[in-house]
Amino acid sequence: MSSALLRHPRFVSLEGGEGAGKTTAINAIRECLRRHGHEVVLTREPGGTPLAERIRGLVLKPDAEIAAEPLSAEAELLLVFAARAQHVRQVIQPALQRGAYVLSDRFTDSSYAYQGGGRGLDPQWIADLERRAVGLLPGLTLLLDVDVAVGRARANGRDLWPDRIESEQDDFFQRVREVFRSRAQQDPQRFALVDAGQVQERVAADVVARVERWLQQGEGA
Amino acid sequence: MSSALLRHPRFVSLEGGEGAGKTTAINAIRECLRRHGHEVVLTREPGGTPLAERIRGLVLKPDAEIAAEPLSAEAELLLVFAARAQHVRQVIQPALQRGAYVLSDRFTDSSYAYQGGGRGLDPQWIADLERRAVGLLPGLTLLLDVDVAVGRARANGRDLWPDRIESEQDDFFQRVREVFRSRAQQDPQRFALVDAGQVQERVAADVVARVERWLQQGEGA
Repeated sequence: MSSALLRHPRFVSLEGGEGAGKTTAINAIRECLRRHGHEVVLTREPGGTPLAERIRGLVLKPDAEIAAEPLSAEAELLLVFAARAQHVRQVIQPALQRGAYVLSDRFTDSSYAYQGGGRGLDPQWIADLERRAVGLLPGLTLLLDVDVAVGRARANGRDLWPDRIESEQDDFFQRVREVFRSRAQQDPQRFALVDAGQVQERVAADVVARVERWLQQGEGA
Repeated sequence: MSSALLRHPRFVSLEGGEGAGKTTAINAIRECLRRHGHEVVLTREPGGTPLAERIRGLVLKPDAEIAAEPLSAEAELLLVFAARAQHVRQVIQPALQRGAYVLSDRFTDSSYAYQGGGRGLDPQWIADLERRAVGLLPGLTLLLDVDVAVGRARANGRDLWPDRIESEQDDFFQRVREVFRSRAQQDPQRFALVDAGQVQERVAADVVARVERWLQQGEGA
């Protein structure tokens, strides 16, 4: 089914679990693309538009009025895809159409990993939502892969108030990691798997090297 | 596909376009069920839980910060189903399980009518969301059917600040009405079609007569 999705040569996503060093890496990619003279739109998921950021709040950081209501896995999936439908139409497509590069901190692969692997929802459902509500794939996806315990130790040092996803247990993140790795294995043309167990500067350097190679191969248009 | 959905004998929904007199009718049904000694949970869609009501606000009455962002039809559909997934799990199923009647002002038929008929989204997608995120149908659906112009004239006299859906044009509501009527025709066992062009007291009396008949036939358990 994913073969019907458009892979856009100027659309780059960054994926990975907690504490993988995504923030340092994404800034390094942005600088790399700018050095090559490209306009870069840096964005994130869930979020990226005012409405999608509001939805992000409902999913990750519910306020006191709604925090006591358990969020079903199904509603979580539908909310992140509602946010993504907005993100694609309001931000990503317009930026790509005017010739910019789009660099997104997470995209649809995260739904396969977190709501599919983590929450146990049917990946066929996710593929159907991807086809109907999104219709677009990155040309390059950098997967920052790190051992769950290592990533958690890093993230715990940083997050004083972990969000709803960050509050999950290790077996959840193990399933998330397995889905990410399996998707990377099944689609080596789109994915670049980076060892994120290294120190952050090294991770960022590896990521930039992969982006440079991708640009040189002319796959990033 | 809908044959796989559970029809619950104590779950009643009320459907209809703008100005059909749903509020008067729903209060009359509640009184009727109470006269028969039943606990009645009165609820509405989109909404019915704190989170689902928050989602309702995003869809129907966006505040200034997000009102300028056009809401895609796809995101609208996913948001109403996210709200419905919560509504079913948090309110409807627990009430039915303890033996109460649930009376909902709108349910999934509204998605077929508004997002399917009105917005033109594929009804097969809606059926898939219904199966995956909802899994439940009312045992009785009262459809208040009224000519679009008549309903609009009534609603306009009432709504000083129409919401996003109410601000649509007549051809939108014509498509909504056609889907409602067609669904009622295809499933006469579940639907009771009521002529809502009559005066509101007469509409409410017809609705109550249909509920009484349904209770006498033992279909409302």
